Amino acid sequence: MAMLFASAVDDAAAWSAALTALEPGLELRVWPEVGRVEDIDSALVWRPETGMLGRLPRLRVIFSLGAGVDHIFADAALPAAPVVRLVDPALTRQMVEYATLAVLHRHRRMGAYQAFQARALWRQLPPRDAGDRRVGVMGMGEIGSACAAALSGLGFAVAGWRRGAERPAGVECFRGPEGLGPFLERSDILVCLLPLTRETRGILDAALFARLPRGAYVVNAARGGHQNEADLLAAIDSGHLSGAWLDVCESEPLSPSSPLWRHPRVVVTPHIAGQVMPGTAAAGVVEELRRVRAGKAPRRAVDPRRGY
Amino acid sequence: MAMLFASAVDDAAAWSAALTALEPGLELRVWPEVGRVEDIDSALVWRPETGMLGRLPRLRVIFSLGAGVDHIFADAALPAAPVVRLVDPALTRQMVEYATLAVLHRHRRMGAYQAFQARALWRQLPPRDAGDRRVGVMGMGEIGSACAAALSGLGFAVAGWRRGAERPAGVECFRGPEGLGPFLERSDILVCLLPLTRETRGILDAALFARLPRGAYVVNAARGGHQNEADLLAAIDSGHLSGAWLDVCESEPLSPSSPLWRHPRVVVTPHIAGQVMPGTAAAGVVEELRRVRAGKAPRRAVDPRRGY
Repeated sequence: MAMLFASAVDDAAAWSAALTALEPGLELRVWPEVGRVEDIDSALVWRPETGMLGRLPRLRVIFSLGAGVDHIFADAALPAAPVVRLVDPALTRQMVEYATLAVLHRHRRMGAYQAFQARALWRQLPPRDAGDRRVGVMGMGEIGSACAAALSGLGFAVAGWRRGAERPAGVECFRGPEGLGPFLERSDILVCLLPLTRETRGILDAALFARLPRGAYVVNAARGGHQNEADLLAAIDSGHLSGAWLDVCESEPLSPSSPLWRHPRVVVTPHIAGQVMPGTAAAGVVEELRRVRAGKAPRRAVDPRRGY
Repeated sequence: MAMLFASAVDDAAAWSAALTALEPGLELRVWPEVGRVEDIDSALVWRPETGMLGRLPRLRVIFSLGAGVDHIFADAALPAAPVVRLVDPALTRQMVEYATLAVLHRHRRMGAYQAFQARALWRQLPPRDAGDRRVGVMGMGEIGSACAAALSGLGFAVAGWRRGAERPAGVECFRGPEGLGPFLERSDILVCLLPLTRETRGILDAALFARLPRGAYVVNAARGGHQNEADLLAAIDSGHLSGAWLDVCESEPLSPSSPLWRHPRVVVTPHIAGQVMPGTAAAGVVEELRRVRAGKAPRRAVDPRRGY
């Protein structure tokens, strides 16, 4: 049996090398060179073409080439095979680095200091203790919990928000739609790490920003589909939000004409918060593939009703 | 007896409020309103005028308004009273935040991404695992050890360099002049947190930069006296160093004509890595003052021969 690899952005040769180093017999077929569709029992994909996976009659498992799976569920003709999230300690580390960097940049007022530097201006701003800075982490799965723990370790007053009560959070945690308002009201820096689902699409909108305290800052390292960019810019320009740090956009790549690029209170990075590295991520794929080929259920299968 | 307060940059009223909240009977005299010099038994100072402390005949303890004491030892006419460093958990936290921010900024290539943003350019650079990024912390006292622990917790390959073998470091540690070369050769990001002493003045010079691996990055959150700015710019412009992040300068405030302000690979902040906050720092001063007034030696007295 063979694995199909399909991604416009990931490096097929690097993945092939990393996978076969662990599983020498593995045959990787790189889209669009599929060969006999009956040979394919597994697929490793990023934003697969609609209908592509439905044409593989013996498909037994679909692996996401990222922590999110929304790009797979976007296919209405998706076959019934389990969808498996990529969970990689190195990817989680990258997300922790990114969230920590964005929060520290805001906390230490680097936007203002970089503007001072551009004017050759030596001016100190008053310090603020991390314990007086309330950080709110939206999404308390593998990645959100790790980010909350790291920020808490730096001394920030961290709380999380999640859908249900899946597992202990390690920090104060608000739950479900009724917990969202109180969570937002105590969040000076909001960090979105949610999965993109029917329920979370567009959640970062004018109504949500209005519930944040005046001067709050928004970090989105999840998906562009979570944010309404017109609402975000309006909330910043009104002075209600102090700024935003975005790794994702409603439409990627972000259009050169977007006002986000040039806004002095917005930092934009090109979807690099968590970049999958085959060398560290292949082990998790091989482990799950072996389980599936041995007739077992994968450990990291996504619940298709929840979408994460 | 009274305490003399002398600083051109710290807020005397805030310090008075914070100190008397803990020690209601404390009399604080603010330079230059000294009154009877015989009343003064203690001084809380930042960059005191040369000779000022020597004119206080009953002085029993000198407190620094910062983590460093070089600004006090700069006075050749310093009296024999013990010099006490300010140790404040909130100040240490700030230093950890600052070092973490600077290291993450370099590690995640934010200099390049901010340049891309200025050009509205959506371009991903290859990721690098923190475990492959070797961070070297110079100075492994209270602050350096805390920074090394935080960076190690993020996954970086951290080592420290220190003068002696004062106490366990928690990370790999190089020692003394003979350990400096091997320490530098393995440091992709060098973070200077040394005290400024006769031995460390000017340590960040051409000879040191040459021992760092090509592409290394230098963070100085200690003292401007540690760095030779002409050597630093030459090492960056030659391509040997990839850049620098400086909180301190040879002469502060940094002159508007300094090329550091406008260099695309240099970040400058105005000596704000650790800003003393009276509300959190006063407790340590009051504790030591009570010891001294009770006839005991202060806990945090600096060794005048070492200078830290």
